[in-house]
Amino acid sequence: MKKFVNDPVMFVDEMLEGILEAHPDQLSHCADNKRNIVRVPRADKVGLVTGGGSGHLPLFMGYVGEGLLDGCAVGGVFQSPSADQIYEITKHVDAGKGVLYIYGNYSGDIMNFEMAGEMAAMDDIETAHIVGNDDVASAPTGEEHKRRGVAGIFFIYKAAGAAAERGASFEEVRRIAEKAKANVRTMGVALSPCIIPEVGKASFSIEDGEMEIGMGIHGEPGIMRSKLAPADEVVDHMMERILADIQLEEQDEVAVLVNGLGATAKEELYIVYRRIAHVLKERRVSVFHVYVGEFATSMEMTGFSISVCKVDEELKDLLRQNARTPFFEQAKF
Amino acid sequence: MKKFVNDPVMFVDEMLEGILEAHPDQLSHCADNKRNIVRVPRADKVGLVTGGGSGHLPLFMGYVGEGLLDGCAVGGVFQSPSADQIYEITKHVDAGKGVLYIYGNYSGDIMNFEMAGEMAAMDDIETAHIVGNDDVASAPTGEEHKRRGVAGIFFIYKAAGAAAERGASFEEVRRIAEKAKANVRTMGVALSPCIIPEVGKASFSIEDGEMEIGMGIHGEPGIMRSKLAPADEVVDHMMERILADIQLEEQDEVAVLVNGLGATAKEELYIVYRRIAHVLKERRVSVFHVYVGEFATSMEMTGFSISVCKVDEELKDLLRQNARTPFFEQAKF
Repeated sequence: MKKFVNDPVMFVDEMLEGILEAHPDQLSHCADNKRNIVRVPRADKVGLVTGGGSGHLPLFMGYVGEGLLDGCAVGGVFQSPSADQIYEITKHVDAGKGVLYIYGNYSGDIMNFEMAGEMAAMDDIETAHIVGNDDVASAPTGEEHKRRGVAGIFFIYKAAGAAAERGASFEEVRRIAEKAKANVRTMGVALSPCIIPEVGKASFSIEDGEMEIGMGIHGEPGIMRSKLAPADEVVDHMMERILADIQLEEQDEVAVLVNGLGATAKEELYIVYRRIAHVLKERRVSVFHVYVGEFATSMEMTGFSISVCKVDEELKDLLRQNARTPFFEQAKF
Repeated sequence: MKKFVNDPVMFVDEMLEGILEAHPDQLSHCADNKRNIVRVPRADKVGLVTGGGSGHLPLFMGYVGEGLLDGCAVGGVFQSPSADQIYEITKHVDAGKGVLYIYGNYSGDIMNFEMAGEMAAMDDIETAHIVGNDDVASAPTGEEHKRRGVAGIFFIYKAAGAAAERGASFEEVRRIAEKAKANVRTMGVALSPCIIPEVGKASFSIEDGEMEIGMGIHGEPGIMRSKLAPADEVVDHMMERILADIQLEEQDEVAVLVNGLGATAKEELYIVYRRIAHVLKERRVSVFHVYVGEFATSMEMTGFSISVCKVDEELKDLLRQNARTPFFEQAKF
């Protein structure tokens, strides 16, 4: 196991200690639990809370901060946080304007966020759920409700976060989050697995020189395993699937996110983007903005995902706003 | 080779096409050569130019932008850019206020930057050289001029960039760059090599479960190879070497950079930072600011480096200023 760890059982808690120690001016925790990450100072606005398993940094807690989210319930590696954690965070961030839950489409997360929402209701805190399901590889068109949430959730965070920051109402922030969700599609490819520290070995195996298109960020099976193809071919295949699903027309505008899964060099992510730009130009689709980097990882997995988010003037305006967390900064543009 | 590439010979140029395509509002090129990366728009101030081999993103070109650098000469993977490239960029960024060269201590780079400076002199452009040499593993105390430049060059870029941006004179920017250089020390550790695309295999081998402390970002031999130790032990060893060299006293303040070499998960970098914070607390050294992420990589190498920069009020003020490139954003804090 080529990892820098101490006791693997302490992986998540030591990581959190490091994060809280490094960024005390931006992040804190609530209810005496370092797995309940909250933004400092608290903001007087619609609350935005996320949560999910560890091992995906900057997902999920990396988006807690100015112009983005207010709190994040952190689970064990690839494990859901508890309903209690989510409930404690909900109470902490609530400013009497409602709290919107934004998380990925995984059964454990859904169950715990729903339970937390019921607990919050007893305290008269209004909540609603936005369940990210951008991964087109995980279920066919028409069965979107079965799709996993992956890197595309960034666009939901960014749009809803900017709206909440400028004082939008609960219903308005919810509408915008739904709109971003409806307009984003993602597909991933992996070349190597990651290792869950407590397990100590890879959760699946893949031959050297093989790739798996459509693999999930926990190593869920993809839709095609084959010999590693040249980057352009891989991109063409992925973009074909994404574009078949999102129905773009000429003159449409998109934001693009090329997300490294952990071990893939940034140099390669730009070789990938080069081809994405070609494909979009051929379709006469305009690129509004491009994000390249690690936004949703699977620790040291080799691979990347492409997210395409169709944008209109409202979403463009929200994406342009500034944001600041210890993991993601953006000046207004 | 678990890489997303097309023709390996085109690795650098396709990467640059992707970068220029993704960020046209921030980066451009000059002298009809995409390997000559320059900031847009041109700024009326002391020019800051860097350069070096590819394969280290965001080094070197990732620091071209507002509050940082004006241009970067991009070489092949682990190869120096040419003197002609540096000279062309110098002419492009020159605003009649002098151009400062900031680069790492590698013989090819030194030779080519010196040659470029001589060419610029014939055009009456004043230049000076700041040669980063922060890697304490690469030569003992007293032989600092033999040390390699690694991730710590970030602090030189940041301080000099902020000074130039606010209109400081050539001599002033040079003094600040020298000051940042004199106050930063780095040490790295690697667990696995990277592969140069055109070569197609690892440049050195290391057993599974082994680590090499002090390894350079091109795979230069380190000072100790041993069985991989727990993260805290690795950090203690590295910090001991760094602190022996930098001579911190109680009440001193430092900025810390924990830099991933490419494949190491961000989760681990924070486990590393947790221990760094302990070590500094024990020495009663205050931490002014912490940077954690990938700042100077070796493509898909597994490993990290620690840089410690001793700061005074002047350096703190410069580090606090905003900066904006496609690879690094920071709001003023």
